[in-house]
This record gives sequence, structure tokens and C-alpha cells, in this order.
Amino acid sequence: MRVADLIRRKRDAAELLPEEIRFLVDGYTRGDIPDYQMSAWLMAAFLRGLNGAETAALTDAMLHSGKVLDFSDIPGRKVDKHSTGGVGDKTSLIIAPIVAAAGLRVPMISGRGLGHTGGTLDKLESIPGFNVNLSPNEFKSVFAKCGCAMIGQTAEIAPADKKMYALRDVTGTVESPPLICASIMSKKLAEGIDALVLDVKTGSGAFMKRQEDAEHLARMMVDTGERMGKRMAALITDMDQPLGRAVGNSLEVRECLEILRGDRHPLSEDLRSLSLELAAWMFFLGGRAKDMAVGRALAEEMITSGRALRKFCEMCQLQGAGPSFDGKPDSLPSAKHTADFKASADGFIESIQCELVGLASLVLGGGRNKQDDIIDHTVGLELLKKTGDAVKNGESIATVHFNDRAKFLTALGVLEEAHRIGAKPAKQTRPLVIRIIEGGKKKT
Amino acid sequence: MRVADLIRRKRDAAELLPEEIRFLVDGYTRGDIPDYQMSAWLMAAFLRGLNGAETAALTDAMLHSGKVLDFSDIPGRKVDKHSTGGVGDKTSLIIAPIVAAAGLRVPMISGRGLGHTGGTLDKLESIPGFNVNLSPNEFKSVFAKCGCAMIGQTAEIAPADKKMYALRDVTGTVESPPLICASIMSKKLAEGIDALVLDVKTGSGAFMKRQEDAEHLARMMVDTGERMGKRMAALITDMDQPLGRAVGNSLEVRECLEILRGDRHPLSEDLRSLSLELAAWMFFLGGRAKDMAVGRALAEEMITSGRALRKFCEMCQLQGAGPSFDGKPDSLPSAKHTADFKASADGFIESIQCELVGLASLVLGGGRNKQDDIIDHTVGLELLKKTGDAVKNGESIATVHFNDRAKFLTALGVLEEAHRIGAKPAKQTRPLVIRIIEGGKKKT
Repeated sequence: MRVADLIRRKRDAAELLPEEIRFLVDGYTRGDIPDYQMSAWLMAAFLRGLNGAETAALTDAMLHSGKVLDFSDIPGRKVDKHSTGGVGDKTSLIIAPIVAAAGLRVPMISGRGLGHTGGTLDKLESIPGFNVNLSPNEFKSVFAKCGCAMIGQTAEIAPADKKMYALRDVTGTVESPPLICASIMSKKLAEGIDALVLDVKTGSGAFMKRQEDAEHLARMMVDTGERMGKRMAALITDMDQPLGRAVGNSLEVRECLEILRGDRHPLSEDLRSLSLELAAWMFFLGGRAKDMAVGRALAEEMITSGRALRKFCEMCQLQGAGPSFDGKPDSLPSAKHTADFKASADGFIESIQCELVGLASLVLGGGRNKQDDIIDHTVGLELLKKTGDAVKNGESIATVHFNDRAKFLTALGVLEEAHRIGAKPAKQTRPLVIRIIEGGKKKT
Repeated sequence: MRVADLIRRKRDAAELLPEEIRFLVDGYTRGDIPDYQMSAWLMAAFLRGLNGAETAALTDAMLHSGKVLDFSDIPGRKVDKHSTGGVGDKTSLIIAPIVAAAGLRVPMISGRGLGHTGGTLDKLESIPGFNVNLSPNEFKSVFAKCGCAMIGQTAEIAPADKKMYALRDVTGTVESPPLICASIMSKKLAEGIDALVLDVKTGSGAFMKRQEDAEHLARMMVDTGERMGKRMAALITDMDQPLGRAVGNSLEVRECLEILRGDRHPLSEDLRSLSLELAAWMFFLGGRAKDMAVGRALAEEMITSGRALRKFCEMCQLQGAGPSFDGKPDSLPSAKHTADFKASADGFIESIQCELVGLASLVLGGGRNKQDDIIDHTVGLELLKKTGDAVKNGESIATVHFNDRAKFLTALGVLEEAHRIGAKPAKQTRPLVIRIIEGGKKKT
């Protein structure tokens, strides 16, 4: 096999065989195939596309470039959820304990935030002592005891993806559905799971702005997972405004704890209902519920019974927060100051631009521009109004939590940009869960 | 300007500005832009194409990545010819002295052979003492004295092309008309010429098998040259069988000397008439002939008067062959042995596959597989029959000149493959000059 031939064949829109794709991925991971050949192949794949079999082969090759976790000696079905990411999206922290509390197992490997999007690991690290860098053995031990555990990507998991993503980032080959699919799926399937629910965001605050693009990617991931023997479903969900009412690491954990505690806040209802829906899908795909109605009821029950909150605290205790961690609000750090962002006119919130809300949190110090920026976990925003709400001139729209006044002032300017206030209430255009893409057709 | 943005824009089929293309080429030549970004850009350009303005900008940037020869202090119009290459194509050696003998100037920078295609430099080097590696000053001195000079590519000429071509070679991005155009034109325009005639081959023995592809490339090169202020024309010519009757370095020089001497051989008539036609175009574009009829007559006259042959000898003498070089056949080296390749049936030569004839010469030792292979200048083939000719079983089809019997036997097998003998004479399907693509429309 010659690399230049494989590049040319993909360039000419031919279908590559699984062993050819594996040759490319393995050779690149080992360093035998240079960056310049891989980047040419990636651009050819970007522009010519990869079909279902090729995408599955790429995913499989990337998955097997590193360690695939094996939990076959731990009883119970292993399930997980993956979200394509959005502002205020903190469902993982709610779902994992709900699902584990009901007896399924959730071995969750998550990412960090970059740019305007937050990351599950950063949120968890706002819990004093919480360690996301467990060794594989520690991870397995927590997972075996607790039923859920949450860690970061390790160097052993899908090293091909790490190397290929870094190359894609600088060669204009990021926004390709099959390459995105293989990147996500290779990491998720390395968790050794039986089923996966995908939350694919669409809307102004999502990576996929257009619903059809989100559906295309979702279908590709569902298809790829099924080709690899997993039970799959994808929810296409709205990301036209932040999810829930908190943006910023410790504030988001606080909002999750409220929900796990059973509190209801009108501006957190979208987060709560999406979390329950995703948990219900995990119950259904994991064989814990015979249908979605049973799944939803089971998810609710885990909250009302307090079992989900206890499970969350148990996980935190096992992952370094210590035996005294009880999930009370004062167990989380707070920013020194708060001040409100206020409406400058009477009217209605016409739209809230997610990217700018995420950016406001970032400029406060709660996010990172570069991989190695250090995060202030305490800062962020609490939204007091969401799209469609009426506001009066001078009324508070959001509370800003900050430690640095200059950053606060910058954030205020960003928030001003983020909110459009109009004369009429916005029409509610679509539900939070826009569409469901189910697997079920067996393919080879 | 960010490289990743330029890659993405070309990927999305946007038109890049001249300064953006120059930024890419300059940065890559200097080593500031890494191979992996350039190869991604090249693949995007391959698949999305470059329009006329982009192709001219790329050519211009590659041209100015190195030294552009300046002969403005040497009087007379400077013209050249470029051929896309074929088997037995030795027109340069005939044309340069014809055109220089009539007072135009031909500063010719040529290439070496690779694979089945021969190279002008290798042919010249079969002349004892001939030096194709003149310094820029030596080149200028020969050129000023003689009116023509022939050297190889130097490191100072279009270094961007050298670097980009090496990268294209291993990243599946060779066969792109705008990239080929920029590669050829950047090197040719570095000669500091006023006009250029292109001989774009098409047919089974050409790089461009299909006539429409050859025309497309020809039109692109004519357009690019004109955008850069040069007078341009392209001849689309047939390469379904070898040009002339000699294939192999010293044998080809010998055939050229015969033509320059005024000898006529039926199997060399295609070579002779194409050479005269190309020379006539150079006279016309160089302002030496008011029309093609005058140009053709002038070219003939340079042969019949003996001036072209004397010019050729003068150039060889100045380039190292020494004052005694007189262009007689015995001034060239010969192989030790000759033996004939014979017909194995009665019939007609239906077709001669150029690549295989070139390969036969290569296996005899007359070509190279790799850049640094050493060539045996004496070996090769003299065709005794061409397409359409009648043959009897056992009649000679070609004389093989060789130094190694094992190689001869291999070459015989290749020649057997190359010749198809059929029951009926082949229909002559097209003339040698299939089509002419003239410039003339001024563009900005």
C-alpha cells in the first residue's frame, strides 16, 4: 500500500477499504506517515466525503489506535451520553448520577472548555478536591463502586484522534461531518460502552447552525455506532439560547445540584427536562426501561427519592472531594462580587446570543482562549431573563459573578451585545428537543 | 493573514487575492509555512480549481520566488518553446539553432528525463563535452555570443516550484491543470522571454491522453502568459506514436543533426515538419515574420542555407564540446551492439505505444527511474516502421542499440508489447498538429 495512492484515490472520490484506512491511521499515529500526507488526505476526505463504511472504518482505526477500556468484569450495562456542546450545557452532571442511581453504569470521559463553550471537566473541578485525572485503575475502582465516574481524556485513549485533530485544526479540515463523527465516536467507544445517546445541538449557539447539518451528523454518528454494535439514538436539540440559567463553572454545578435536589426554577426547566429526556433514552437503550414513558418516570423517581443526589455526592467523595461533601451550595466556592446587568429599554428579550454569553463568562476568567489558560471557577452569570421574557428599563437581566472589576466591565459590554430587546415578544419557534434520530436498522 | 483561513477559503471554493497567494508561496518557500499546510491547500486547489487570475498570481509568485533572468542589455527579442513531453520528442535541439540563426534569441532552460520520457539535457549530454550546468554568467555569455544557449534548471530559478513539486509528488496533487500551468510557466518566464510557443501533446503517449484536457491546459498557459505580458501560442500535437524515428539520447541528437543538415528521411518527416512549424510560430510571435507563411519559409531557409547547423555547432562549441565539434555523426558516441526487433507476423503496424517504446529505451539504460540514476547515452532504438506501415513476418521493425545483452532481451519483450500488428492498415485519424490555440485577447 502506498500513501500517495490512497490520497489520490480519495481525491478521485473512490471508496477506501477498511484495511486501507487502518493503514493510514496506524501509520500516521506511529509517525511513519508524515503530517503533509495526512493533511492532503484529510482535505481530500473533507471535500469528497466518506461513506458509512469508510466512516466506521476510520472510527474503528482511531478507536484501536489506543486503549479501549474493558469493563466486562463489572456487571451491568454501560451507557453514556455525548453532547456536541453548547453554552450552559451541564446535563452530564445531572444525567450520570440519575442513570447510575437506577443501576446502569456510566463511565464518562469528558473534555475541557475552549473558547465560548464550557467543559464538563472544568465544571467538576470547581468542586473542591475533585480529581478528573484518575489513573485507569482509580477510574475503574470508582466506576465499580459507584456506577459512575467522570474523568478527562488520557493519552492512552484514541491517540490517533489527538494527533489528527491537532492537524485538522491548522489545515482547514475541522468542519467535516465524517471526520467529526470519527473523532467523537472513537473517543466515546473507547469507554467500552454498550449504548450511547447523542445530544446534537443546533441553532445560533451551536457548532451546527443549521438543523439539517445537525441531523446529518447525528445520523452519521448513529449509523457508525450501530455498525460497531452499539445501541444508539440522537436527539437534535435547540441551542438558540443558553441551557438553564447558569453559565460559569461553580454556578453551573450549583444549578445541577438544585435540580438533583428536586428544586424547580422556571429558568432551569429546559435543562431539567432535557436531562430527564436524555436519561430516559439511556434507560431505554440500556435495557433498564421497556419504553420511554417508563424511562422518564424512572429518571424523575431518581430525583424525587434523593438517590440521584446521593449518587452524585458519592462520586464526588470517591473522586477526591472527601467524605464530607454533601452537595450543599456552600460546599462550592463563590466569586467575591456580584452585580447585575440591566435592561436599557422596555420591551421583550428577542434573542440571546449564546456565543456572546459564553464569551462574557470567558472574559470574566471562567473560560480559556488557549489550551493552557488557567480558569477562575467562581465567575460567571446567572440569567434572570430568557428569550421571550418582558423587561423594563433598568430591570436586571443577569447577575454577574466576578473577581475583577475591569473584567466585569468588559463582560457587561459583551452582554449588551448578546441581548436583543425588541418591542414584541419573540415567537417560540421550536421545542427544545427538535427531533429524534433512532437507530435500530441493522447494518453490516 | 492566517494560513488556515486561506486553506479554508480555497476549500470553500472562494477566489484568493494575488497578495494572499503570494503570502502562501513566499511563506512556504522561506519555510515559515509548513508542508502540512501547503499540502492541504494544494489538495483544496486541486479539487476546487484556480481561476485565471489565481493561476496567474500563483505563477507570478512562484516566478518571483527566485531569480528572473534579465537579458534586457542583450538586443533582440527573446523567444522560447516548451513541450509537455513525449517519446522521441527532440524538437528543441532543432528549433533553437533555427530560430537563433535567423536573429531571434532563445535562452532555453530544459529538464531531464524521468520514466519513459526523455529529457533535452540528457540528449545534449550525449555530445562529448557538452556542459548543461553553466553558471548564470556563463549562460549569459554563450547566449549573448551565439543567440541560443541550453542549460538545466538551477537552484536560483523558481525555488518555490522545486519545493512545491516535490510536495505535490507525494501528496496526490500533481495532475491539476492550474498547478501544472503555474509550475511550467514560472520556470519558463524566469528565462526573461518576450514570447513563448507551447507544444502540448495529446494521445496515448502523452501526459494528457484526452485532447480536451490538453486544450484546457494549453488555453490556461496561453492565458497565464498573456496576463503576464507575453505573446503566446499553443499547438496541440499528436503523441500517439513516437516523434521521428530515434529514441535514446545520442541517437536522437544524430536524427536532429540529419535534419539540420537538410537530410530527409520519411520516418523523420513528422519531427521535421513539427520543428519547422514551431520555429515559424516563434518567428511570428517574436516579430521576425509577419505571418506564418513567411515564418515557415524562413525556417526552411535556415536549414537549406546551413546556418541552423552552423548555429548548433557554435552553441555546442561554446558549451564545452570544443572548437572541433562539427556535428558529423562520428562526433557522437555509439553503443557496442545493434540487433533488430522483427515482426512475428505479416500485416500492418496498427499502433505503437509510446510509453512502452520509452520504457524499452529506459530498460536498455537510456533513461532513469529515479532522479539520480546514471544514463547510458549510447543506447536506444531506431524505428524502421511506424504506424500504418506494412510488415512481413521476420522483417525488421526497429534496430536496437545496446551494450548489455540481458537488457537487450528485456527491451525486445517490451517492444513486442509496444507494437500491435493487425491485418489491415490503420486509418490515419488526425494530423500531427491537431489544433492551434492563439492568444491575442488582452486581459488584465
